[in-house]
Amino acid sequence: MKIEVLLLPSQKPRLDSYDLVAVIDTLRATTVIVKAVEVGAMGIYPVKSITEAMRLKEIVPNALLAGERKAFKIKGFDLGNSPLEFTKENISGKNVILTTTNGTKVASIYQNYGKVVAMAISNVETVARYSENFQNLLLVCAGSHGEVSLEDSYTAGKFVSFFDMVSLNDGGIIARDISRSDPMKMLKTSHHGRYLSSVGMGEDLEASLIERKAIPVLKTDMINLKFFGGER
Amino acid sequence: MKIEVLLLPSQKPRLDSYDLVAVIDTLRATTVIVKAVEVGAMGIYPVKSITEAMRLKEIVPNALLAGERKAFKIKGFDLGNSPLEFTKENISGKNVILTTTNGTKVASIYQNYGKVVAMAISNVETVARYSENFQNLLLVCAGSHGEVSLEDSYTAGKFVSFFDMVSLNDGGIIARDISRSDPMKMLKTSHHGRYLSSVGMGEDLEASLIERKAIPVLKTDMINLKFFGGER
Repeated sequence: MKIEVLLLPSQKPRLDSYDLVAVIDTLRATTVIVKAVEVGAMGIYPVKSITEAMRLKEIVPNALLAGERKAFKIKGFDLGNSPLEFTKENISGKNVILTTTNGTKVASIYQNYGKVVAMAISNVETVARYSENFQNLLLVCAGSHGEVSLEDSYTAGKFVSFFDMVSLNDGGIIARDISRSDPMKMLKTSHHGRYLSSVGMGEDLEASLIERKAIPVLKTDMINLKFFGGER
Repeated sequence: MKIEVLLLPSQKPRLDSYDLVAVIDTLRATTVIVKAVEVGAMGIYPVKSITEAMRLKEIVPNALLAGERKAFKIKGFDLGNSPLEFTKENISGKNVILTTTNGTKVASIYQNYGKVVAMAISNVETVARYSENFQNLLLVCAGSHGEVSLEDSYTAGKFVSFFDMVSLNDGGIIARDISRSDPMKMLKTSHHGRYLSSVGMGEDLEASLIERKAIPVLKTDMINLKFFGGER
């Protein structure tokens, strides 16, 4: 098995295609997408802008608007970007249009490289079990505003750590090396974790560590991309 | 003290200016530049292309051409890019025009952010001692062909580890976390270290670990940039 880890999405993948591409934005886009699928959302549509979210709401049935700017809920939206808001009561059976500063922009870039799934600390073990027989995997850390992020790199490293015989690029070696620390301590040390705590969203860090079994898969729904939990 | 570590030069620095900018390309550009300054080279001119190297040789007195493509010496050049070639006999009192695939391109980008020095594992302690009273430092890892490199990140982490009370970005935390391993083991594990060993240049890894006291500083020499060891 070969695992290639991109610590930033500006890095170009080495291969043209992979058995699986796992996109990671642990605080908080992919954590939220994993939770949404687990509690029964029909689909999560990652979009780049507020305008695009509004436009999509016109055509997607039964849709909620969700997203953040600087971690806070966007004015007029139904939900922010906290896993605590993505409850079964709020979103089961519904579609969610999600725009975040960062992570939702990354997923679309990599769809030509293979099947894209959303990964966070919460479902890293589930995705690893699912990947056991794959040969070439690509893990893409969304990072934060163009910077390498500790929690995304850590999540990639946790994934890598499930496999003994594995060929890694340098990004993968680095990720594995840093994944031995305590996850809560790591989140509290990370730049974005500290920011979330400072604006009263520290509970999101604990919520990010709850283990989940969902694997959100990206697919094209008409001309739009959505994550959903249907087939794998 | 604040240390910002860019694991790839595609990342934008947060500040407009720093007390010091340390550019790192441990295998092998900055290792070679440190050694060249230590054994008495007049100046090392980092250039991007072979054409530019040839042009510069016409105007720089007493100059040697050095550089590599895929780790091997460029045809017609005096030296490759191995620290073993940069002996006192070969280069003392001379100017060296150096073109490498990677590291020499990075230095020029960051000259507007502050005084640029070349750092490698060999002089990391010397640069750390020199930086003791600075407030804002930027460490830029050159990486390898647009990918994060283990040995550059490790070198940045070694630097960070010299300081107790320090504020770090996530790149800095990651770098520090991975810098606890054995340096030789790390070099042998790294992608470029394995490549160098595979093409018979494994001795360069040991040579990269020899401690040195030189701090090559980047300055403008007429319209060209050069590293030199004169004033700090």
